[in-house]
Amino acid sequence: VTKLNRQILLAKRPLGLPEISDFQLVEAPSFDIHDGEVLIQTIALSVDPYMRWRMGGPEMHSEPFELNNVISGGGIGKIIESKNPNIPTDCFVTGQLGWADYNVSDGTGLRMVDPKNAPIESALSVLGMTGLTAYFGLLDIGKPMPGETVVVSGAAGAVGTVVGQIAKIKGCRVVGIAGSEHKAQYLKEKLGFDAVINYKSEGVYESLKKACPDGIDIYFDNVGGEVSDAVMYLINTYARIIMCGQISEYNQKTPSMGPRLQKYLIYNQALMQGFRIRQYSDRFNEGFEQLGQWVRDGKLTYRHSIVDGLENAPKAFIGLFSGQNLGKQIVKVSEE
Amino acid sequence: VTKLNRQILLAKRPLGLPEISDFQLVEAPSFDIHDGEVLIQTIALSVDPYMRWRMGGPEMHSEPFELNNVISGGGIGKIIESKNPNIPTDCFVTGQLGWADYNVSDGTGLRMVDPKNAPIESALSVLGMTGLTAYFGLLDIGKPMPGETVVVSGAAGAVGTVVGQIAKIKGCRVVGIAGSEHKAQYLKEKLGFDAVINYKSEGVYESLKKACPDGIDIYFDNVGGEVSDAVMYLINTYARIIMCGQISEYNQKTPSMGPRLQKYLIYNQALMQGFRIRQYSDRFNEGFEQLGQWVRDGKLTYRHSIVDGLENAPKAFIGLFSGQNLGKQIVKVSEE
Repeated sequence: VTKLNRQILLAKRPLGLPEISDFQLVEAPSFDIHDGEVLIQTIALSVDPYMRWRMGGPEMHSEPFELNNVISGGGIGKIIESKNPNIPTDCFVTGQLGWADYNVSDGTGLRMVDPKNAPIESALSVLGMTGLTAYFGLLDIGKPMPGETVVVSGAAGAVGTVVGQIAKIKGCRVVGIAGSEHKAQYLKEKLGFDAVINYKSEGVYESLKKACPDGIDIYFDNVGGEVSDAVMYLINTYARIIMCGQISEYNQKTPSMGPRLQKYLIYNQALMQGFRIRQYSDRFNEGFEQLGQWVRDGKLTYRHSIVDGLENAPKAFIGLFSGQNLGKQIVKVSEE
Repeated sequence: VTKLNRQILLAKRPLGLPEISDFQLVEAPSFDIHDGEVLIQTIALSVDPYMRWRMGGPEMHSEPFELNNVISGGGIGKIIESKNPNIPTDCFVTGQLGWADYNVSDGTGLRMVDPKNAPIESALSVLGMTGLTAYFGLLDIGKPMPGETVVVSGAAGAVGTVVGQIAKIKGCRVVGIAGSEHKAQYLKEKLGFDAVINYKSEGVYESLKKACPDGIDIYFDNVGGEVSDAVMYLINTYARIIMCGQISEYNQKTPSMGPRLQKYLIYNQALMQGFRIRQYSDRFNEGFEQLGQWVRDGKLTYRHSIVDGLENAPKAFIGLFSGQNLGKQIVKVSEE
C-alpha cells in the first residue's frame, strides 16, 4: 500500500537560533521495502539540543545533516510491514528515525521496546538515550559519593531531571539550576531536589554559595556560559565537572568569550570531562537494566512535554533553546 | 657560632608582574637550634611560577606567604649543625627552605640527597618536584600511548623539558611550544623533540596544524592563554589535556577572557584535568626511582639556568615570567 509520507527536510543551515523557515515539510509516497527490511510508522520523535550541531554543517559536526535531506534523530515507531524475519510486525522499536511519517530500515540500530514496561515514549526519555546520558555521565565521570554536593544545570530538561534523581539515589545533596519558578517547584516537590536556583531571577553565584555551604563536588553541565562560570568559582578540591551540553553556546554566531577558568581546575585539582553517549555503547545494557529497575521501584520518575504533529517538530526543537520544555520534549506523530 | 643570616621577605603583594621592590633583603643573626633540630646552610633554591599564587594572598592561595615574612620554596642545603640523631652533619637535604642563608628544621619534610648520584641541584629539577610533576602529570593523567602526538607548552621550561623527554621515552610524537629560536633548537637537537613552535614568531594554530598531521592526543599545558586556545581546536577524540600551569595568567590584574572551549571537550569526548604534585605524595618513591633510572640510563637529561647569589632570587623569580630560563631556574646561594 502506498501511503503519503510527510518528511521534514533541512532547507537551510541555521544562522544563530534556528527558524521555522530553516525547515521544509514535503510530501512523498512512502517507500517500498525489500527483503530484510521493515516499514516503520513513526509514533514519536525526540528533539535534542545536540541536533543543532548536526544542522550546522561539517564545521560543527562530523556527521552533519545534509541540506534538503530528511532530518533524523531518536524516535519510536511501530513495525507495520516486515520482510525481516527477526522483526515481526506490530512490535515497537526505537532507534534513529527520519523526521517522517514512515521510515524503512534493515533493522540496524533498532531496539525492541516492550509497551508493557512503561509508556513507550519513555524509550525516548528515562529509558532511552536521555537516561543513559544522565546515568553514564554522572556515574562514570562524576563518581558521586554519599554526602557530596551535585549541581546540575538545565536541571528541568530531559537529562537534568534524570541526573538529579540519580544523584539523590546515590545519597548526594542536589542543587538544580533552571529557568522558571514553575520548573524549580517541580524539581523540589516532585523530584526531591534539595534546592533549585532560578538563573533568570537570582544571582547564580550568590544563590549557589548559599545553596552549597560545603562547596560543589560535582557539576553536571548542560548549559555552559555565565551560569557555569559561577559554578567554577565554588568547586571543591577534586571536583568533577561533567560536560554534557552547552546549550547556551550552540546558536552563537561568533565564538563566545568568557573568563579563562583553567586555573580553577589546577588550583582545585579538578577534572572537566566531555562525553558523548555513543562512547558507552558497550555498556548500554547495564544502563537500561539499572534505569528500568529504578523506574519499577518508583525511585526514578519522568515527565514528557509532548507536542502533537510531525509538522510541529521544528517548533518543538526550536523551543528547546528557550527552555519551553519541562522534562523530555517529545513530538507525537501518530497513535500507537 | 652566630652567623649573619640574610633573608628575603615579601615586602608587598605584587600587583601584576612582581617587581624587585616587592621583595626585601634583611640581615638577621642565624638561629639557635634546639634538641631534635638541625641547622641547614642553603646551597640552592628553586624558583617556580606557582609561587606567584602564594604571593597573591589568601584570595589566590590557601597557604599564602605572609607579608614581611621570609619567602619559602623548594631548596637544597647542607646540614652544618645537628641536634637530631637521624640527620648527621655534612649530609645534603632537600625540602621546603626559606629564602635565606640558613634555615632551622626539625627534619619534617626533608629528604636526603646523595651527591654521588647526580649534581645535587638536580634534586630541584629532574630528580625533584619538577621531575615528579612531569612524570605524574603526563603518565597518570595523560596516559600516553606509543604513536600518539603530545604537545607541551612552556616546553623549554623546567617541567616542559622533562615532559617532552618522557613522552619520547613512551614512543610519542612530541611537539613543543616555546618562546625563542634558541630554545627551539635546544629542544630539537638535545632533547629529541620532533618539532618546536616558536609562539613569538609563528602563528601557533597554523604551525601546530602542520606539526601535528594526525591531530593532538595529549596536551601538557604550562602556559594557558591564546597559545592553549590554538591547541584546543586541534585535539582528537579522547584527548587528554593536562593542566599543570597557566603562567600567562598569574600576573593578570583582572580576570582574562578567552573563547569558551568547553564544547571542544564535549565534541571530542576529551578530558581536561588540573593537578598539583602534592596529590601524588604517596607515589613519590615510584617517581623518584623511575626518573633516577632514566637519568642513569642517559634517557633523561636536564639543564639548569643558574643565577648566583641569594640576593638575586627575586630577579630569577621574576625572570620566569618572561621566559629567561632554559630548563630549571636555580638560585645558587653557597658552594657545596
